[in-house]
Amino acid sequence: MTKWIYIEDIASYEDQDVEIRGWLYNKRSCGKIRFLLVRDGTGIIQATLFTPEKEGLLFQKYDQLTQESSLIVRGKVKKDNRAPGGYELEVQNLDIIQIAQDYPITPKEHSTSFLMEHRHLWLRSQKQNAILQIRATLINAIRNFFDDRGFRLMDTPILTPSACEGTTTLFETQYFDQKAYLSQSGQLYNEATAMAFGKVYCFGPTFRAERSKTRRHLIEFWMVEPEIAYAVLEDIIELSEDLLLFIIERVLEKRKNELDILERDTAPLEKIRKPFPRVKYDEAVKRIKEKGLDIKWGEDFGAPHETCLSDIFDSPVCVTHFPAKIKAFYMQPDEKKPEVVLGLDVLASEGYGELIGGGQRIHDPNLIQQKIKEHNLPREAYEWYIDLRKYGSVPHSGFGLGIERTLAWLCKISHIRQTIPFPRLLYKIYP
Amino acid sequence: MTKWIYIEDIASYEDQDVEIRGWLYNKRSCGKIRFLLVRDGTGIIQATLFTPEKEGLLFQKYDQLTQESSLIVRGKVKKDNRAPGGYELEVQNLDIIQIAQDYPITPKEHSTSFLMEHRHLWLRSQKQNAILQIRATLINAIRNFFDDRGFRLMDTPILTPSACEGTTTLFETQYFDQKAYLSQSGQLYNEATAMAFGKVYCFGPTFRAERSKTRRHLIEFWMVEPEIAYAVLEDIIELSEDLLLFIIERVLEKRKNELDILERDTAPLEKIRKPFPRVKYDEAVKRIKEKGLDIKWGEDFGAPHETCLSDIFDSPVCVTHFPAKIKAFYMQPDEKKPEVVLGLDVLASEGYGELIGGGQRIHDPNLIQQKIKEHNLPREAYEWYIDLRKYGSVPHSGFGLGIERTLAWLCKISHIRQTIPFPRLLYKIYP
Repeated sequence: MTKWIYIEDIASYEDQDVEIRGWLYNKRSCGKIRFLLVRDGTGIIQATLFTPEKEGLLFQKYDQLTQESSLIVRGKVKKDNRAPGGYELEVQNLDIIQIAQDYPITPKEHSTSFLMEHRHLWLRSQKQNAILQIRATLINAIRNFFDDRGFRLMDTPILTPSACEGTTTLFETQYFDQKAYLSQSGQLYNEATAMAFGKVYCFGPTFRAERSKTRRHLIEFWMVEPEIAYAVLEDIIELSEDLLLFIIERVLEKRKNELDILERDTAPLEKIRKPFPRVKYDEAVKRIKEKGLDIKWGEDFGAPHETCLSDIFDSPVCVTHFPAKIKAFYMQPDEKKPEVVLGLDVLASEGYGELIGGGQRIHDPNLIQQKIKEHNLPREAYEWYIDLRKYGSVPHSGFGLGIERTLAWLCKISHIRQTIPFPRLLYKIYP
Repeated sequence: MTKWIYIEDIASYEDQDVEIRGWLYNKRSCGKIRFLLVRDGTGIIQATLFTPEKEGLLFQKYDQLTQESSLIVRGKVKKDNRAPGGYELEVQNLDIIQIAQDYPITPKEHSTSFLMEHRHLWLRSQKQNAILQIRATLINAIRNFFDDRGFRLMDTPILTPSACEGTTTLFETQYFDQKAYLSQSGQLYNEATAMAFGKVYCFGPTFRAERSKTRRHLIEFWMVEPEIAYAVLEDIIELSEDLLLFIIERVLEKRKNELDILERDTAPLEKIRKPFPRVKYDEAVKRIKEKGLDIKWGEDFGAPHETCLSDIFDSPVCVTHFPAKIKAFYMQPDEKKPEVVLGLDVLASEGYGELIGGGQRIHDPNLIQQKIKEHNLPREAYEWYIDLRKYGSVPHSGFGLGIERTLAWLCKISHIRQTIPFPRLLYKIYP
């Protein structure tokens, strides 16, 4: 029996007989030769049918094959620099599994709404495939980064009794006899596990029921959130730099082909070095104004402000020391200037906006109780969170990195909806 | 400045001065020596204070320290076979960060409901810590297993427009102008990504709104689900054996200390070999009856039946070929006996029940449409799923492994609520 292999491993089978199980991506005829482009999910290979033997059986099958028909081909692997990928398969044998009738996504142009309605099939296209291959590599790199540095993965709950940052953008569900909400962040729970395990991270889906329709937002997205007991702002600034440099390096190393398919010019990524430029909010506002954009001290950045900042520095930028009133209740005030907090935003280069948000958390038990009161949060839901400040409280810090935003940046694609297999958008939940 | 290190790395710092940042786990006095047991989340170390110097300052601090007080100790690492962990720290310097007043979880016995109410603190206890360290290692092992074998991680959505297996146990939420449900399984979406990427897995939280209160069920739990295009039942039986053997080996290798803390006798895990015993449902029913338990052909197994089967074989067991009517609509019927389907359940040894459920999926477009009709599922919600059978349909198979069930088995703990940092149970969602 011929060995079933995957196209990504083809180089190890030069001059050997192998079997490939896949789908027809495209075909063409050239004189007395027929070429099949066969995809198996890990790559595309050119499978070559030569002058008809066996009463032209192979050529008859070639004629029947339509786009996305499923087929099994067997033959010898040959090195051929002219072939896409450097190898081709000289087909000896071809089994048709199913002829696909009228596959909806043809090589012609389709509207995005049509493609989104057919997302389950659009995933088979070369560019979508490339983006999501990079996604898998990105996630693997992030997990390796934290695992190798001694962070403990501690999964935080999705169903929570209360909001992390206000209730207006929460999905609500009935949890037996009470209400529950889908998590927007694992951070508060991370603070508990950090006190138990030292260095932790959570990595899971998060949800924001925002009625906004932008190129940068998904309703359901994945986030990785490290949290470190005894860490201060400076520690997590360095951690975020190391993390971003690590994932850039890994993706450039492992997914060169896919970045080529996406026509990503990788030079802007390759030149990123640490330390990233660091600006305090005060200075950031000044620099943005100098560039002619409108912003007042105390206002949060919008997309144009973020793009303006990263353009000034032509690099990812760390912004810190934000006005307390535009940040969450748990942010540690700056000792020297208590109206600002030790928050951290890392903005992507090339105008992709905020990749990382985090900071140092309040560890004083009285201050956290005062903030909970000031923000009108229900005290009883936060008792456990206050406990963390009563029993061996320590300074601690952490951040969240949005996977899809980061992937959009690495791939330099225009819309975040292509960065997850089945995007959830405003009003859009099919397929 | 003395270097801040973690206790798990202590062996690399013999005879060096280091700093450890942590919490007081326990303390004791013995003649003119004082011992602190300091935990930092990665381990516990004995920190020794000798006869008072500097007017007895260290001993004064010792007297103040209470359980879970936060502290920083600096001193020299000494090999000492009598100390737990084999090393101790000769303290030169001690900073108290916060004295914890009346830490609620004392070394005395507490009721489980009390401990569950204080889950955010209970995580700091040695056994809970050990279980969740093993959890992190287990998840890492599973991801490595799939990544190293060429499976692509493809995250499937949590918010879905329809049910995978009926709607009675679903959490519902308002998704803008329509209803959405929390996913019970990524499988249907996996089938789409498998056709695009060949071999895939998803790994995320899943939700079952079951009004059942057992030692084996959580409302929110994590599941890993591989799916392979062109794979048949036999392929995924082998994959499930390889997966289980791999994670057993990894956990035994990396988490020996933690298994010791849990007093887990690892002999039953060490002797597990592949192939696992395989029984078809028909034979399983016969064997269960022979043992005196009550079951009729066509009934699903309950916990006692599962335990009975794994006891007979004293090994994990693969059960296959179930009656179609007790399995999901998408299961491939057996060609020779169409009233049974090519499903697979892998039962744990030692009475821990079903670890893995899966099987071969229907790939015939007419049959899948007929089944959707027979099960009264809304056709329009499954159009995309039917598409997968129209455009290059191929045989395909996969399964799901529940993380918490598997962890309970590996640790041999009696209740699944200890296998996740913040368990979600019937009526129970705090903290």
